[in-house]
Amino acid sequence: MDILSRLKAITPHVLTGADTLPYGRDWVGKYETAPLAVVRPRTTGEVSAILALCHETETPVVPMGGNTGLTGATAAEGALVLSLDRMQTIREIRPEARIAVVEAGVILQDLHDTAEDHGLTYPMSFGARGSARIGGTLATNAGGSNVLRYGNTRDLCLGVEVVLADGRVLDLMSELHKDNSGYDLRDLMIGSEGTLGVITAAVLKLYPAPKAHATAMVTTTGLSAALRLLNALQTRTGGMVEAFEYMPRGYMNNLARFRADLTPPLGHDQDHTIFLEIGSTMLRDCTPDDTGQIPLVAHLEETLAALFEEGLVLDAALAQSEAQRNLMWEIREAAAEISTAEKPVVINDLCLPLDRLEAFMDQAETRLRALDPGFKTCPVAHLGDGNIHYTVYPSTPELADPLMEEVEEIVREMGGSFSAEHGIGIAKLSSMERRKNPVALEMMRAVKAAFDPKGILNPGKTLP
Amino acid sequence: MDILSRLKAITPHVLTGADTLPYGRDWVGKYETAPLAVVRPRTTGEVSAILALCHETETPVVPMGGNTGLTGATAAEGALVLSLDRMQTIREIRPEARIAVVEAGVILQDLHDTAEDHGLTYPMSFGARGSARIGGTLATNAGGSNVLRYGNTRDLCLGVEVVLADGRVLDLMSELHKDNSGYDLRDLMIGSEGTLGVITAAVLKLYPAPKAHATAMVTTTGLSAALRLLNALQTRTGGMVEAFEYMPRGYMNNLARFRADLTPPLGHDQDHTIFLEIGSTMLRDCTPDDTGQIPLVAHLEETLAALFEEGLVLDAALAQSEAQRNLMWEIREAAAEISTAEKPVVINDLCLPLDRLEAFMDQAETRLRALDPGFKTCPVAHLGDGNIHYTVYPSTPELADPLMEEVEEIVREMGGSFSAEHGIGIAKLSSMERRKNPVALEMMRAVKAAFDPKGILNPGKTLP
Repeated sequence: MDILSRLKAITPHVLTGADTLPYGRDWVGKYETAPLAVVRPRTTGEVSAILALCHETETPVVPMGGNTGLTGATAAEGALVLSLDRMQTIREIRPEARIAVVEAGVILQDLHDTAEDHGLTYPMSFGARGSARIGGTLATNAGGSNVLRYGNTRDLCLGVEVVLADGRVLDLMSELHKDNSGYDLRDLMIGSEGTLGVITAAVLKLYPAPKAHATAMVTTTGLSAALRLLNALQTRTGGMVEAFEYMPRGYMNNLARFRADLTPPLGHDQDHTIFLEIGSTMLRDCTPDDTGQIPLVAHLEETLAALFEEGLVLDAALAQSEAQRNLMWEIREAAAEISTAEKPVVINDLCLPLDRLEAFMDQAETRLRALDPGFKTCPVAHLGDGNIHYTVYPSTPELADPLMEEVEEIVREMGGSFSAEHGIGIAKLSSMERRKNPVALEMMRAVKAAFDPKGILNPGKTLP
Repeated sequence: MDILSRLKAITPHVLTGADTLPYGRDWVGKYETAPLAVVRPRTTGEVSAILALCHETETPVVPMGGNTGLTGATAAEGALVLSLDRMQTIREIRPEARIAVVEAGVILQDLHDTAEDHGLTYPMSFGARGSARIGGTLATNAGGSNVLRYGNTRDLCLGVEVVLADGRVLDLMSELHKDNSGYDLRDLMIGSEGTLGVITAAVLKLYPAPKAHATAMVTTTGLSAALRLLNALQTRTGGMVEAFEYMPRGYMNNLARFRADLTPPLGHDQDHTIFLEIGSTMLRDCTPDDTGQIPLVAHLEETLAALFEEGLVLDAALAQSEAQRNLMWEIREAAAEISTAEKPVVINDLCLPLDRLEAFMDQAETRLRALDPGFKTCPVAHLGDGNIHYTVYPSTPELADPLMEEVEEIVREMGGSFSAEHGIGIAKLSSMERRKNPVALEMMRAVKAAFDPKGILNPGKTLP
């Protein structure tokens, strides 16, 4: 019996030929592949049977969630796509224990909505939340816009269920906040991009949903002042900062060119603009006073005024309405659009030690200018995480590689990472090879061999 | 040349004979061993040379920090003790980046003091902080009394430096808050109890030190109400709860018997007492008002009053002075003393899903009573973490094992763990064998073989 017939004996949900096309194309449109077939199991048992079959027949398998990744990690030329998109049950929400038990195929937005019904939030959020699936966020250890306050996916996950390469089920579906019974296999699986196992379910943390937000655009004298501002804000608000995003002049230039409809409250002509938001669950913050004002907003106003006195803030505009708040978010969320509107473009997803960001910006300017006097940039940063998307526009396409190389070299020298939140997939394989600690690479290969000795799981990804 | 001479060629700090005695005895006094020798390197390079030598000669090595563990993880019969106690430099404190770079032998209290000098805190804390060393807290993923707010050791660590079994140095000394460049080897090393590598240095997170605390003892109708109280408090304070400790009647009984000098503010005759503390860094909380009162204390008072109205709180006593606060802490910190004052004793370090703690307490009472009608308990819990130290006093020593077995069986049925914060070492090996998920055990063994193929690192620990 051929493999397709054997797959169909496990589940009738097997796609071949033209039906596989949507699964062979990535979201960016960069990787076009022809999968062997697509299988869409409904249960962990079916996933287990499929992997046992692939293991026996040495068939390469590419696990796939919402297929919204940016690194080609789901490219599946000649491989079997194992789509989790039919495993989309939210098994449990336990409000008192503040956990959700979900299958890997649950769409992020669906979990947001369900948590909201309980006055809770699952704080992982990013642009693709309407189609990204939980399994994919776990496989890539996704970041997003609330990492500063709540951490990345790894921090939000208590337990996972994983099917191993040979079909064994590794049940780590713990709900526990403390568990020192052995090696941390959970965190090893999270972020392994489907190369060590297939995540089929997870236990996730929920948080009380903030009942009020205070949002502002602020200008500062530079990155160093911005970092001191962040620390001061965290101290004064008790860690309520949910977003702290940095948009320098290069960003404002592109905003003016490509989204002239979005006028920043403090204007485009600023060297260092910060967009920030704090959120509170506290009654004392969220209950309007006699004049109708939200105390949280007054609190931010006072805090910024004090920081203005200290010279950390040059100017500030607080959102006085939901419309003003939305405008500020739109200015930040226009990043993907305005940074890819120019070509040729080099996209970077860098992370740096927080107190080296300013030095990075200075060195990048100098050293890239030396290579290409006409280069331009449109940087934007999740500043609180040290995560900067340093988009570069070379004068000519031939300079793209040298400029990317130089950026990554500066990052390496400063103890940074060439991959902050998007992962490796195919797109960053060469960076992995050149820049990852060689002993770490050796041990990654040893771990890979231990979990997937036949190398059937997402071959050609993550590990160069 | 024999191994001792070769060790002495690496460092003169090699102890043998009677000099090894302090290293052959554990803190509890349960494990007495005779090490082959003790070597005390000063640098990562020396650790690397030592391990390369041990690898070549297949000499078993037991890494040791402050030797304050409770599970016998540093017992070293016939093995070389690799003590990190001379590597105790705090290499860097970077206040703006909120990180500390430390060597593995730094004593926890020393890091506390140094962080405090910068207005910051390293929030990991427990009784043995005056002698426990950072490397040991990392090797065991230590818990302690502030896990609820700040997480366990794994959550507090950004990067580690590890020497592998064969002497290779795995440099994961990242300061980054986001890094998706490959498998999470850092978290695999943390909590591996020296069986996968020897941690020699780390990058740790620092936090703003709370400037005011509000502390209370509270009585509730039961564990379920206590959990609702915790959630309500977290929501109303915006996550400021630093300690939330549960002391039921059994605890109060032992307190009255063995520490009659400590009178609980609400008396001993209570079924369910909670000790709680909130901490704030916010100026508005910490600046005394016109009457000299700290707003944070008033805030807790109002919050508890509201929860009294909701029926979650039966009675409450707020600490009105530092002396009252200290008394409350002493009552909680008397746990080790009052729970081991009776014999025979079975000590447990359990973790349960938060919303199953009440059911656990009920079932344990019923099922243990069936096995031993005369059994007594002295439970105390880090309730916010689901971590309960359920100390049992059997009527006769022969009943100790059956009672421990029954407790662990209830824990297993409820999805809990037999090891919350102390780890496995030798003490919990049999629990590991009986109760750990068998596929997880298989994969732990595969990981161990990948990192330490000759099995020289802390043999006979962690893995049954």
